[in-house]
Amino acid sequence: MTRKRQMRLGLSIRGLGYHLAAWRHEDMDPGGALDFHHFLKSAQIAEAAKFDLVFLADSVAVRQRDEPAGSLCRSSQNVELEPITLLTAIAARTSHIGVVATGSTSYNEPYHIARKFASLDHISGGRAGWNVVTSWSDEEARNFNRDQHFDYDTRYERAAEFVDVVAGLWNSWEDDAFVRDKASGVFYDPAKRHVLNHVGKHFKVQGPLSSARTPQGRPIISQAGANDAGKEIAARYADMVYTGNVDIEPAKAFYASLKSMLPRYGRHPDELKIMPAISPYVGRTEQEARDKFEELQALIDPAIGLQQIYRQLGDMSAYPLDGPVPPPPADVEMVSDAQRLYNMAQKDNLTIRQLYERVAAASSMRVVVGSAEQIADTMEEWFTQGAADGFNICPPMLPHSAEEFCELVVPELQRRGLFRTEYEGTTLRENLGAAPQPFPAP
Amino acid sequence: MTRKRQMRLGLSIRGLGYHLAAWRHEDMDPGGALDFHHFLKSAQIAEAAKFDLVFLADSVAVRQRDEPAGSLCRSSQNVELEPITLLTAIAARTSHIGVVATGSTSYNEPYHIARKFASLDHISGGRAGWNVVTSWSDEEARNFNRDQHFDYDTRYERAAEFVDVVAGLWNSWEDDAFVRDKASGVFYDPAKRHVLNHVGKHFKVQGPLSSARTPQGRPIISQAGANDAGKEIAARYADMVYTGNVDIEPAKAFYASLKSMLPRYGRHPDELKIMPAISPYVGRTEQEARDKFEELQALIDPAIGLQQIYRQLGDMSAYPLDGPVPPPPADVEMVSDAQRLYNMAQKDNLTIRQLYERVAAASSMRVVVGSAEQIADTMEEWFTQGAADGFNICPPMLPHSAEEFCELVVPELQRRGLFRTEYEGTTLRENLGAAPQPFPAP
Repeated sequence: MTRKRQMRLGLSIRGLGYHLAAWRHEDMDPGGALDFHHFLKSAQIAEAAKFDLVFLADSVAVRQRDEPAGSLCRSSQNVELEPITLLTAIAARTSHIGVVATGSTSYNEPYHIARKFASLDHISGGRAGWNVVTSWSDEEARNFNRDQHFDYDTRYERAAEFVDVVAGLWNSWEDDAFVRDKASGVFYDPAKRHVLNHVGKHFKVQGPLSSARTPQGRPIISQAGANDAGKEIAARYADMVYTGNVDIEPAKAFYASLKSMLPRYGRHPDELKIMPAISPYVGRTEQEARDKFEELQALIDPAIGLQQIYRQLGDMSAYPLDGPVPPPPADVEMVSDAQRLYNMAQKDNLTIRQLYERVAAASSMRVVVGSAEQIADTMEEWFTQGAADGFNICPPMLPHSAEEFCELVVPELQRRGLFRTEYEGTTLRENLGAAPQPFPAP
Repeated sequence: MTRKRQMRLGLSIRGLGYHLAAWRHEDMDPGGALDFHHFLKSAQIAEAAKFDLVFLADSVAVRQRDEPAGSLCRSSQNVELEPITLLTAIAARTSHIGVVATGSTSYNEPYHIARKFASLDHISGGRAGWNVVTSWSDEEARNFNRDQHFDYDTRYERAAEFVDVVAGLWNSWEDDAFVRDKASGVFYDPAKRHVLNHVGKHFKVQGPLSSARTPQGRPIISQAGANDAGKEIAARYADMVYTGNVDIEPAKAFYASLKSMLPRYGRHPDELKIMPAISPYVGRTEQEARDKFEELQALIDPAIGLQQIYRQLGDMSAYPLDGPVPPPPADVEMVSDAQRLYNMAQKDNLTIRQLYERVAAASSMRVVVGSAEQIADTMEEWFTQGAADGFNICPPMLPHSAEEFCELVVPELQRRGLFRTEYEGTTLRENLGAAPQPFPAP
C-alpha cells in the first residue's frame, strides 16, 4: 500500500512571532527575542508535533531607515539573537527537528558559510539547512563597508557564484576519505581530497574545506527569492523554497513554473519542496479565531502600521488613515512590492489603515483565520491543487500560537493522512524527502 | 579573612588533544574531532572541576602547504568543527563554564564577530569570550579572495581597528534602553540607542548592532599575540591573554611588561589575566607520567615530526634525523619562531628527531611531566613568582588527559587554596575576576 503524499511543515520562529503587535499582548514576554529558552520552547513544541524543521529569517542590521514618524522605537524588531548560533544551541537540545538558518550571500564569505553550516550539520547529526538570501537594505550595506546595497544584477550574480563555491567546498572530501588507520599512520587518502581552486568574478577560494563531508552529504539548501535569478538558483540547488504567495492562483503558477525548471539541471521536480508561508490564527471555533486576530490588530500602533508600508509606498503620514491609498511614488525602490500592495488596496477597496493592518498582521504573508478544520481545509487545497508541497508556519505569537497550531491543526492533518505521526528518518534530508547527495553533490 | 589570590584555569579542547600522535593511541576515537559529544564530554569534565572556561584555537583553512614529504595525510588536524558553532552547542548543554572561541580579524567582518559573540553571550547567560587572532597562513588568505596573508603591519593595524569597531558595536544600546512598555507602545528609549558610524582605514561600519547589551556588558576579550602590536591590543582591551612561554624567566618578563602597560589605558593590572599554556602529562607517580609521555612520543610518524618544524626551519628531510639541527634557511617566514627553535636545539644539543619530538609533543608549548604534586608545584611557582595568573591546560589526549588532570591535579591545587571549589559567580566575567563593564565599556 502506497502512502499518501506527505505535507512538509516548517515553523518560523523569528522574534516574538509574526504579528507586529505581538509583544504588546498581555500573555507575552516582550524580552523573549533575546532569550534562548523562548526559542527552545518553540522548537520543542514543533519537534513534539513532528515538524520537519524550524526556520529563522534574518537581516544583518537594524533597519533604522524605515521610519516615517519616529516609529522605530515602537517596533520589537530591533534586537534579536543571531540565527546560526541560536539554531546551533537549539540543535544541541533537540534530536529530530531540522534547523534552517538564513545566511546572506551579499555580506558573507562563502568559506565561512560552508564551514559553519557543515559544522552545524555535524553537530546536529544531519539536521542543518542554509536559507540563501541576497539581503535588500542599505542599512545592511552600511554595516559592511559599503554605502548602498548591491544592485539587482550584481546581487544575484554574486549569489549564484557564492552558492557554487559553497557547494564546491562541501565536496572537498569524499565520504570515505578519512581512513584514520592507526597502524600505518595514514589519516586520510590523498586521492579523496579535492581542492576547489575557485577563481570567479566575485570570489577566489582555494579550499579544501576544513570539515569532512557532512551527515546529509551536504546541508539542505533553502531559497527564498521569487524573482527569475532566485528561481534559477533554486532550480539548480535548492531542496526547499520559502514563498510569500498570498493567493492560490499565483501560487500555482509559481509552483508549476519553478518545478518545470528542475529537469534542465538534471533534477526531478519532487526534489524541491515548495513551502509557502502562512500565518495561522486558529480557534476552537471560527469566532474564537477571529477574536484572537482582532485582539492583536487592535494593538497595532498607527506609527508602526505606517512603517510597514513605508518602504513600498513612501511616507503616508500626511494622508488620512481612513482615506484611500494613494498610488506609489515614482522613486520607490521596491517597485514590484509597491505595485502588489497598491493593487491589493485597489482590489479590496482598502483605506490606508486597513492596508497597513493587513500587512502588519503578518508582514505581507498569507493570513488564515479559522477553526482547525478550516485551516486544514485551505492547507489541503493548496497542497493537492499544485500550489504547495508544505508550509512554513509563521505563528502570530510565539510560542503560544505555535502551541495552538500543534494542538489543534496538526492532529487534523494527521487524521486526513496528510502529515506524519512519527519521523521517518534521522536527518532533515530524509524527513523532508530531499534527494540523497552521493559524492560529488552536483 | 581575605581569601588567597585564586588561579584561573582554562581547558583547551581543540581536536583530539595537543599531542600530534594522540589519534594513534589505542584508547582514542580517531574520528572525535567531528563529534560534538567528544567535545561536550571534555567541557563537562572541566565544568565539574570548576574550570573558568574552555578554549578553542582556530584556523580558517587546511594548512596544506606544511608538507615536506607527503605528511599532510598523516595529520589528524585537517578537519574539525567550527569554534563558534561548537562552543554555542556546548553552552546549551552546560551551565557555568565559560566558552572562548577564536575569531580572526584578518578574515572576518567586525559586524559578524560582534553579533555572533553577543548572541553567544545572551544564549549562554554571560559565558562568552572572543579570542582575537590575526591568523598567519597563506592558506587562509587563499580561502578569502587573496593570494597572500596580510603583512605584519597591515594585519595588526587592521586588528586594532577591528577590535575598536567590535567594542563600539557592543556599546550600541545602554543597559536600560529596552523599556518594552506595552501600554504606551514604546519598545526602546531612542536616547539610549547609539549609532557607531565608524569610518576608518580598513572598515566602514554604521551600526547599531542588532543585539542588546549582553549579560557580561560585553563578552570577555582574549588575546594571543605576544608581539608589540598584539600587546597593545591586549593592554587596551583584553580580559585574558593566552601565551606560549616555555621558560619561567621570559614568562616573568612578558608578564611584567604587559601588566605595566595597562595603566596607560586607565586599567588596573589585575583586570588582565595572563594564562600561559601548559600541556600536562600526569601520573600517580612521576614514572607513570613519563611512561604516558613516552608512549605517545613513540607514536610520532617521522613525516609528521618533520612537518612540525617545516614552517620554521624548512624542509629537513634530506638531513639525517639523528644528526644536528642545521641553521634556519635565510628565506624562512617565521623568523622569530625559527630562531627560537634553533636556539633551543643548540642549547640542549638536540638532534632533528629530538627537536621535532619536543615540538610535536605539544605544538611548542610548555610540557610538564610528573606526579600531581610535581605539576601543582610548577604551576604554583609560576603563579606566585609573577609569571602567570592562571593556565590554559592543553591536554595531550582528549578527553582522557583532561579527566586525569581534573582527578589528580585540581584537588591538589584546591588543597593548597589556589583554586576554587565552587563557582563564585554566574558569568565568566565574574568567575575570571575581570572588570565589570558599565555602559559604555571603554
